[in-house]
Amino acid sequence: MKIAIIGLGLIGGSLALEFGKNHSIYGIDNNLEHQKKALKLGLVKEIISLDNISKMDVIVIAVPVNIAHKLTLQVLDLINEDTLVFDVGSTKEVICTEVENHPKRKNFIATHPIAGTEFSGPNAAITNLFTKKVNIICEQNLTDKKQLEKLITLLKPLNMRLVFINSAAQHDKHIAYVSHLSHISSFMLGKTVLEIEKEEKNIFNMAGSGFASTVRLAKSSPKTWTPILLQNKKHIINSLDEYISNLQDFRKQLQNNSDKEIFNTIKSTNHISKVLKN
Amino acid sequence: MKIAIIGLGLIGGSLALEFGKNHSIYGIDNNLEHQKKALKLGLVKEIISLDNISKMDVIVIAVPVNIAHKLTLQVLDLINEDTLVFDVGSTKEVICTEVENHPKRKNFIATHPIAGTEFSGPNAAITNLFTKKVNIICEQNLTDKKQLEKLITLLKPLNMRLVFINSAAQHDKHIAYVSHLSHISSFMLGKTVLEIEKEEKNIFNMAGSGFASTVRLAKSSPKTWTPILLQNKKHIINSLDEYISNLQDFRKQLQNNSDKEIFNTIKSTNHISKVLKN
Repeated sequence: MKIAIIGLGLIGGSLALEFGKNHSIYGIDNNLEHQKKALKLGLVKEIISLDNISKMDVIVIAVPVNIAHKLTLQVLDLINEDTLVFDVGSTKEVICTEVENHPKRKNFIATHPIAGTEFSGPNAAITNLFTKKVNIICEQNLTDKKQLEKLITLLKPLNMRLVFINSAAQHDKHIAYVSHLSHISSFMLGKTVLEIEKEEKNIFNMAGSGFASTVRLAKSSPKTWTPILLQNKKHIINSLDEYISNLQDFRKQLQNNSDKEIFNTIKSTNHISKVLKN
Repeated sequence: MKIAIIGLGLIGGSLALEFGKNHSIYGIDNNLEHQKKALKLGLVKEIISLDNISKMDVIVIAVPVNIAHKLTLQVLDLINEDTLVFDVGSTKEVICTEVENHPKRKNFIATHPIAGTEFSGPNAAITNLFTKKVNIICEQNLTDKKQLEKLITLLKPLNMRLVFINSAAQHDKHIAYVSHLSHISSFMLGKTVLEIEKEEKNIFNMAGSGFASTVRLAKSSPKTWTPILLQNKKHIINSLDEYISNLQDFRKQLQNNSDKEIFNTIKSTNHISKVLKN
């Protein structure tokens, strides 16, 4: 098949590497540097423009979520009847609402591969990024069955676990907790420690693997993450309020030397290891 | 040399594995299960009681920090003139103050290996836990030079990077930011997500490696961490207040759709990757 990938960053580039094993990959990216790098790295066969997408069998929308929804409308206008279009953004409600009444709504699938690293751009593209990862598919009932089967066949070699969550709003609420909140907690941890480091030099000499793990997501791209956090702000603010309230309670327990409460809080939170199954 | 390790958990057990390559290791632990496991796993040659430690060349204090300081006094009372005693706790001010006026202060070294995992107990003991990790040594001037050299020789095969921070109070202040605060941010993230999961089942289906990384420390032992957090509460509360304040500012920026501010906050926090050199 001919597959066009719009947005040649971490996710788009990594999909290009996987799909490129069995298909012809065409790239679209309005960043000239990214175009050059994608060609040089062999992620894509050719750089094309939006005008050429009517010849494609599949279009992947892998641009930041503040651009993805309008771009998807544009793409749906341009494609032929048999083309599959799917996005890979971290928010699903805005894009699903945007395409809701488009005559080619049935050609579109809203997906969210839960895969990534803290790096970005074509250089961040890696093979096996998606292996055994979850891929969430929303509003599957609004998609043509043939297109859904095309996507499932296309994804098969990637060995992902497909999870169907019909409601885009439910997706956004849940993902606020298990992904977006983690990013904020990590960004703010990095910020707090960088601030104190200005006065207390060499503090990072003392940092171990625990700090590195907790702060890993603070390396994530502002270009990707600013629009995600803003687009999902309703759910994120709820989760953030609960997080801040838990931190304030914990602070009080520390202040009051409530050793039993602290012990029990930590102990019951250890349950996370069972939930994450490792 | 004959080395007694008091406390056969993650750190004590892992030190037993390393030191055991060149020395005879004796274990002390008031938990019968830990005694049995340590023997079964071959971490120690023999379980002994405190009464026997006068025959030892080195004593390692690897018990939770709420017990370590008093135990160190007891140990210093019992040892002979040539014995080296060192602790491995995550707080240094309380223990250093406790031993300050002991006639055998010169036999003691306050150390803090910045190494660990989220697991605990003798089963958590692993080889190479300390390889290339930092080991902080406080108040080195108050220790006999011969004992300091003995420790350096003993640690040599572990290939650690020794960092000397004279002031125990400085150590505790800095470590609040780069270790203790990370643990709290992770515990509270785990707590917040577990709470919402009670109402929203299967939320963990959607969790990826980013969440797993940020919440990894939430698996840490309450027995180890409750006393650490309480003992260093003065510095931790300061760091926690700065963290909460940063989270509240970020919440405001989200509420106000301040995309430029959010972008710049994330971008400047990305600097953490240079600081952590990866």
